[in-house]
Amino acid sequence: MSEKTFKIRKIDIKQGAFEILMNAEDAHDLALKTHDRVSIVPEGLDGKTVIVNTTETLVEKGEVGVFHEVWEDLDVNEGSNACVVPVPKPRSVEYIKRKIRGKPLTKEEMRELVKDIAKGNISQIELTAYVVAVQIRDLSMDEIVAATNAFVETGQRIDFTVHPIFDVHSIGGVPGNKYAPIAIPILAANGVTIPKTSSRAISSPAGTADLMECITGVEHDAAGIKQIAEDVGGTLVWGGGVNFAPADDIIIKVEHPLSLDPHGQVLTSVMAKKLAVGVEKLLIDIPTGENTKVPDKEEARRLARDFIELGRRVGIEVRAAITYGGQPVGRTMGPALEIKEAMTILEGSAKPNSTIEKALELSGIILEMAEIVRPGGGKAEAGRTLTSGLAHQKFLEIVEAQGGDPAIRSEDIEAGPFTAEFPAPKDGYVIEIHNRRITRVARRAGCPRDKGAGIYMNKKRGEMVDKDEALFTIYSESEWKLKDALKLAKQTRPYTIEGMILEDVIE
Amino acid sequence: MSEKTFKIRKIDIKQGAFEILMNAEDAHDLALKTHDRVSIVPEGLDGKTVIVNTTETLVEKGEVGVFHEVWEDLDVNEGSNACVVPVPKPRSVEYIKRKIRGKPLTKEEMRELVKDIAKGNISQIELTAYVVAVQIRDLSMDEIVAATNAFVETGQRIDFTVHPIFDVHSIGGVPGNKYAPIAIPILAANGVTIPKTSSRAISSPAGTADLMECITGVEHDAAGIKQIAEDVGGTLVWGGGVNFAPADDIIIKVEHPLSLDPHGQVLTSVMAKKLAVGVEKLLIDIPTGENTKVPDKEEARRLARDFIELGRRVGIEVRAAITYGGQPVGRTMGPALEIKEAMTILEGSAKPNSTIEKALELSGIILEMAEIVRPGGGKAEAGRTLTSGLAHQKFLEIVEAQGGDPAIRSEDIEAGPFTAEFPAPKDGYVIEIHNRRITRVARRAGCPRDKGAGIYMNKKRGEMVDKDEALFTIYSESEWKLKDALKLAKQTRPYTIEGMILEDVIE
Repeated sequence: MSEKTFKIRKIDIKQGAFEILMNAEDAHDLALKTHDRVSIVPEGLDGKTVIVNTTETLVEKGEVGVFHEVWEDLDVNEGSNACVVPVPKPRSVEYIKRKIRGKPLTKEEMRELVKDIAKGNISQIELTAYVVAVQIRDLSMDEIVAATNAFVETGQRIDFTVHPIFDVHSIGGVPGNKYAPIAIPILAANGVTIPKTSSRAISSPAGTADLMECITGVEHDAAGIKQIAEDVGGTLVWGGGVNFAPADDIIIKVEHPLSLDPHGQVLTSVMAKKLAVGVEKLLIDIPTGENTKVPDKEEARRLARDFIELGRRVGIEVRAAITYGGQPVGRTMGPALEIKEAMTILEGSAKPNSTIEKALELSGIILEMAEIVRPGGGKAEAGRTLTSGLAHQKFLEIVEAQGGDPAIRSEDIEAGPFTAEFPAPKDGYVIEIHNRRITRVARRAGCPRDKGAGIYMNKKRGEMVDKDEALFTIYSESEWKLKDALKLAKQTRPYTIEGMILEDVIE
Repeated sequence: MSEKTFKIRKIDIKQGAFEILMNAEDAHDLALKTHDRVSIVPEGLDGKTVIVNTTETLVEKGEVGVFHEVWEDLDVNEGSNACVVPVPKPRSVEYIKRKIRGKPLTKEEMRELVKDIAKGNISQIELTAYVVAVQIRDLSMDEIVAATNAFVETGQRIDFTVHPIFDVHSIGGVPGNKYAPIAIPILAANGVTIPKTSSRAISSPAGTADLMECITGVEHDAAGIKQIAEDVGGTLVWGGGVNFAPADDIIIKVEHPLSLDPHGQVLTSVMAKKLAVGVEKLLIDIPTGENTKVPDKEEARRLARDFIELGRRVGIEVRAAITYGGQPVGRTMGPALEIKEAMTILEGSAKPNSTIEKALELSGIILEMAEIVRPGGGKAEAGRTLTSGLAHQKFLEIVEAQGGDPAIRSEDIEAGPFTAEFPAPKDGYVIEIHNRRITRVARRAGCPRDKGAGIYMNKKRGEMVDKDEALFTIYSESEWKLKDALKLAKQTRPYTIEGMILEDVIE
């Protein structure tokens, strides 16, 4: 193949893929078309496979435009030289087509494909084709095991000196799911080492990392996570700051716009990240109920069994808890409101509610897995750790270890400042809070990016409400976002009152 | 939803999709993320739905960067104002997900989806998901009919004053398939009105439009095509210059990088374009054999039956011919070499070969469909039109009507100038010419963009060759492309000689 030297020009556009921009004439001379693959080799550095895009004017002849992701990855300087060498499609593209045709991939093929994804050698079109093929054709357990191991191989790992390492992970799908800031301190206070890494919200109002970021640092590298967990017993950090399973992060980028979440990919994604962190014993929380990710209990059981089987094959002891997810957990949604609610519970000033119940149930199971209490005694022991104040003390230790102020109190956290109450259209009992609709309202109000945005649920399922009394209160950092959120709430009606006629069915 | 006014800045990058670029802060203010959809509404013009991309520096706050496809479509000026209004995902995205789940789409849903595709409302990720879903789940005949009609509705149409309108279309997959410049003049000379529109090469060495472009104009608008066909009886133009089925052109862009060609999409794509041109009687050529698109004869018959059924339901009388495609047609591949070979045949100075046979067979069938000859007499009549010189005379009329010089002779056409012969590795009979491998060599030499690039096949299947005698000759316009092509030929060995040991199996 022929090659040519070009001057590098940085182009600050995030393409969501590794792409470069060539002048149309240069591309023609190298017989390259849009979407073709080349290796770009900066002088004295290793080459990287990228996808070609062309322009007639933005990049001159002899220049090569390098998009954000590529110059971040290559670490090149404006004006330096690079060779551009046409390269053929990687063999993995053939494997994707094989998967489309319904043929299984071998362990070696799966590893090669994951490697190419991690290196950015697979274009967005090809990656989407893979995700849709996996959604329709499914992955066998052999393929899932191979993919999980390959995800870990291509990323960073933590190697703990203490053992065993525990974790608890919720597959998501229910808003307000703020058990972690309560459960992790309970467990760490009992001597369990539990380096919890969580995600930021993708489609929910807030992820655990978004909550913690209101009061402390969540971006720590692998060495930092290890240090904090070994020092204070637990972490509540963002997992995305470490390159744990880079292929997964790339796959998620095409899953999200399609809101696809193929069964095999859920398993691989969760387990690879846990393996990378060094987790040895894991509790999986599978929220089930109307308008969750897994609405069907039989499907939840299948997922639970698959997690356990996958764990067995990659060396993690897994237990799975199917939890109720048919309405939001607790009273709040949104980063600031949720961490405020969790801290109120830790401080001992909250009334009984579903957040407390869930946090105690989940930490109870882990206390039993860790053999700290006899089977059946976990929840009570977790409750004692909470009411004794030991969990609160441990929480503040974690906050401090992650860089926050240990003197923080729940009343210091402010949401808002723009708020609006949503009134009940009639008297009656609340019979449903629609997870997806209430989530959309919270996101329209600014969640998760505006930390103060969110929803306080004045009423929950089964509670009595009078006409015009507040069902829920929307918080926002901007007046127009509040207005938009209120408008959406009126259109979509996330609450159902017994006997209410559903005039508008939007979703 | 909120909106804001921005200054337009043109960004000359072809994204292969309708996209704009916003400053990250502006995007955040409008609660927009990469891949979200907005409507961009230039002052005093209609809005257009586009996909958002973000940058930190390339576009300032208050500016909106408009990529090539968008400013071509909107026809806006640099520096003018436009509103940006967030819009929700179109319902069609839900239909794509339904297709992924294996559910059929109704006629109305299919129409809405095709409309959104034609308008550029569907992102590349979503479109890829659709194509893969169609590949795996297949389209029912009802869906194919709905898609075909919607493809036509969303594009331009020709309304002929003469009737009936004929056409012949090859589904492709065999290189060197240059029957059209011979068959169309034969038919037009017999009084058949046949406005043939063809494609440029996508994955082959040359399309009929690439051939004709060596000697005349091929880019005509709908009115031009109608005029030429009504004046001289036939055209040999490029169909891509008219907006016949815009949704199809958009779908092809994601099919190509995956080399996917779903059954339902092949039917829809071909028939929609024929309907748009006003075709009433159509002959479909389905080349079958090793390394063609449809290697299996049973699959070819199924495709033939589906074409006939689809034709019946959209109002086109279809006949289908399954032809031999197990090796390239004729002696040449590549634009200049192929049109030269076709003209040699029209001029009467060629030896019998597979191009002549195929052109006469296909035009014979149409002469019978047109009831110009009795059943069974078509091929002989086509042969008489060829040998009498009438076809040649008609061909030159078409060349002139399309803007070329009617005095053109085959010897005026030059290929090359760089050539290399590929020698036989041993004595023996040629038992195979591998369609895909020889095509890759021709493309490496510069086909289809370099018109003079191509391959002359000194030997074809069944012919005897001596060791070191030329099997084929590569033509190129550049010395290094010739070198590359020769190297690829040595690696992939597109010819098999009887008794030869295949040491290197590349594909």
